[in-house]
Amino acid sequence: MNGMETRAGRLFGVGVGPGDPELLTLKAARVIAAAGVVAYFAKRGRPGHARRAADAAIAPGAAEIRLEYPYTTEMAADDPRYRAAMAAFYDAAAATLADRLRDGVDVALLCEGDPLFYGSYMHLHARLARDFPATVIPGVSGMSAAWSLAGLPMTQGNEALAVLPGTLPEAVLTARLRAAEAVVIMKIGRNLAKIRAALTAADRLDEAVYVERASMAGERCLRLAAFTGAPAPYFSLILLPGAWGRS
Amino acid sequence: MNGMETRAGRLFGVGVGPGDPELLTLKAARVIAAAGVVAYFAKRGRPGHARRAADAAIAPGAAEIRLEYPYTTEMAADDPRYRAAMAAFYDAAAATLADRLRDGVDVALLCEGDPLFYGSYMHLHARLARDFPATVIPGVSGMSAAWSLAGLPMTQGNEALAVLPGTLPEAVLTARLRAAEAVVIMKIGRNLAKIRAALTAADRLDEAVYVERASMAGERCLRLAAFTGAPAPYFSLILLPGAWGRS
Repeated sequence: MNGMETRAGRLFGVGVGPGDPELLTLKAARVIAAAGVVAYFAKRGRPGHARRAADAAIAPGAAEIRLEYPYTTEMAADDPRYRAAMAAFYDAAAATLADRLRDGVDVALLCEGDPLFYGSYMHLHARLARDFPATVIPGVSGMSAAWSLAGLPMTQGNEALAVLPGTLPEAVLTARLRAAEAVVIMKIGRNLAKIRAALTAADRLDEAVYVERASMAGERCLRLAAFTGAPAPYFSLILLPGAWGRS
Repeated sequence: MNGMETRAGRLFGVGVGPGDPELLTLKAARVIAAAGVVAYFAKRGRPGHARRAADAAIAPGAAEIRLEYPYTTEMAADDPRYRAAMAAFYDAAAATLADRLRDGVDVALLCEGDPLFYGSYMHLHARLARDFPATVIPGVSGMSAAWSLAGLPMTQGNEALAVLPGTLPEAVLTARLRAAEAVVIMKIGRNLAKIRAALTAADRLDEAVYVERASMAGERCLRLAAFTGAPAPYFSLILLPGAWGRS
């Protein structure tokens, strides 16, 4: 036994919820306040959404690690250059956190919404969880904040829910909308015209509710048919409640 | 103007999360602590899951209203007697809360998980939100707690998520499993043998992870293929991560 040996630090993937700082869980607030290092993803030139939501929970003087994405604008997710650049970015981020974990420091990695639901955290979990104890703290998802703001009963009893990315081809989206009951459409941004066309083809446009910035300043919801803006902002999605919610 | 007129109370549908009292949000804890009345659903002879998760947040001496479901065992959800009994139950519960709201008292109605995602809250929201200000506070869902415990990256990039009730007929379940990417199967209970058959028919049994009591005492997860218990308990579900999570 080496008396100088240090216990490895623990990695926490901390869901900080949809944006409202009050939608952090008690557990998230406790783990963030106790962590030796608070890490977070951010786009170039931006404060970082997760960092902002967690601000009040971070202990004064805590060490912070900003993990800045290599791109500020979206690139096709299947572009090999994009994939290579992102893999290198996640490798470097994991190496940075591993250094601190090996020193025995607990690291809280802040995640918008819920870490394993469309989150960047999973890329670091995949790279670090074999070597270090990793705990995921679930958070309130952006879609929960959206249907709560809209007051829409999404699913009841034996209804299914489909979460569909707006990036799907129009024909695929139309077919899935026809087969689905309750639906959430994510990643609407520049896909809005295509999504409208698919909703119209599936005869479901009238059910669609557009929600923007749920739980944050400027939050709003309205019938999609009445929304004329384009492209839709980052924090926006479309909801179609199940049959019970339409009655 | 009548000087004795009171402001109507506000109804809060408060998501208390998946079971761990630390997975309440800061907002849920604040609203519960400040409410004049704390109401909750419970099965006959049981303390009520939402009540238990919220216990530490309830102010000492707060007035409580227990809304006890008329049935302790499951009845077919499409049985007209069941539907009539449940409608009468929700009518009576709404009338009880309306009495307090008319007195100007704020009522926090506790909800397991997230109120508008397979929750009983929506039945009272539908009955009360026209007459009283109603606010829904989103919570961490049981499925988020499950995939966090399992450390499973559920959805990434352009993957879709399907949430399927295990009550669907086997052929429907099989078809949907074939078409889906990431999947959550809820309400597995006595449907487990049928769900296994559907997963086998869709050639997806090996991907399936069984999770029980996520975030609560006795939580566990294992490959569904290795799970031999039946029926599955109330707090259990099956997860199939998207392609990224399987790589």
